[in-house]
Amino acid sequence: MFITLDGIDGGGKSTQIGLLKDWLLPSGPVVSVRDPGSTAPGEAIRGLLLDSDLEMHRRTEALLYMAARSQLVEERIRPALENQATVLSDRFLLANVVYQSVGGNESVERLWDLGQLATDGLQPDLTILLDLPAELAITRLKGPADRMESRGVEYLEKVRQAFLSQLSRSGPHHVIVDATQSIQAMHNDIIEAVQSLKRTMAKE
Amino acid sequence: MFITLDGIDGGGKSTQIGLLKDWLLPSGPVVSVRDPGSTAPGEAIRGLLLDSDLEMHRRTEALLYMAARSQLVEERIRPALENQATVLSDRFLLANVVYQSVGGNESVERLWDLGQLATDGLQPDLTILLDLPAELAITRLKGPADRMESRGVEYLEKVRQAFLSQLSRSGPHHVIVDATQSIQAMHNDIIEAVQSLKRTMAKE
Repeated sequence: MFITLDGIDGGGKSTQIGLLKDWLLPSGPVVSVRDPGSTAPGEAIRGLLLDSDLEMHRRTEALLYMAARSQLVEERIRPALENQATVLSDRFLLANVVYQSVGGNESVERLWDLGQLATDGLQPDLTILLDLPAELAITRLKGPADRMESRGVEYLEKVRQAFLSQLSRSGPHHVIVDATQSIQAMHNDIIEAVQSLKRTMAKE
Repeated sequence: MFITLDGIDGGGKSTQIGLLKDWLLPSGPVVSVRDPGSTAPGEAIRGLLLDSDLEMHRRTEALLYMAARSQLVEERIRPALENQATVLSDRFLLANVVYQSVGGNESVERLWDLGQLATDGLQPDLTILLDLPAELAITRLKGPADRMESRGVEYLEKVRQAFLSQLSRSGPHHVIVDATQSIQAMHNDIIEAVQSLKRTMAKE
């Protein structure tokens, strides 16, 4: 079972991944990864993407994200799934499509096509979108803003709307979790979605 | 006018690019680049590709080459062409398709499609293939073999044949130069091809 958590920063992805991992562990192995990252080439590529001294065309950025994801899929995700582990990914292709299409000239169609090539067709079984208004997300964000989140509330609200509109293309099952709720309430919603997925997959 | 020189290592690409640049300079500005490379992000990506400690899936490699090429096209090649310069590139998409399809599982169709996305459709006006038998190429190569050329003569001959079979898809005009000839004879063949292209483009 391959589950991704996504959405704009400030929604509590890391916290929820940790809680979900703890909840899943008694039922079997869980592998948690982050995209981009979680492989040696992927972390090196992540380093280039976060290097604010490197001025990059948006298509170059998109292709670097795709390269990191290709490695993540082949080196970590597919082998874990073949070993019956549950894989939790902090972000995946959806985020790439959203961030590269908003404010850039890349069409979402082209980005989904490119993503299909990069992942060799692997989709998450369940995509969990942690949704919250951009204004609230920004007040929650601490520390130096990176390239992805430094463009202000208006930009971030566009990103949020793109997550909502593109979510259904991420894979066969998806759920929107209200990230203005408490940590425990979000966790409960996420568990409910995972249990529902398990029932659906058991029937298939 | 956008000209690329390509082919297996040992064919004398760098020498011929230098000679062609000197020959072209009296007629106007010439920009010479190498792919991957010639931009800050491209050189950083090239560093990852040549780092033998980083074990990469072939699709990850292909996407990194594409990312470097995307940056090269947008930062260097298109602006130079818009300024009426002649652009000479040491390798381009053709090499990427050839090296990633030979010995990998990637289909040439998929690689050309991906290349079309990465370059946003920019093709060389003229692709010059410096062709020589793999055995001769290997005797000419000096220094430590990199990842691309360390797989022996049989592999290199397959790469050579793939260059020959894929050449016609690189762009509208292409020429095979016999790289077993002397440097001067090769240079003469290249000049002839460039003059022929200039006549053709003047008519178009």
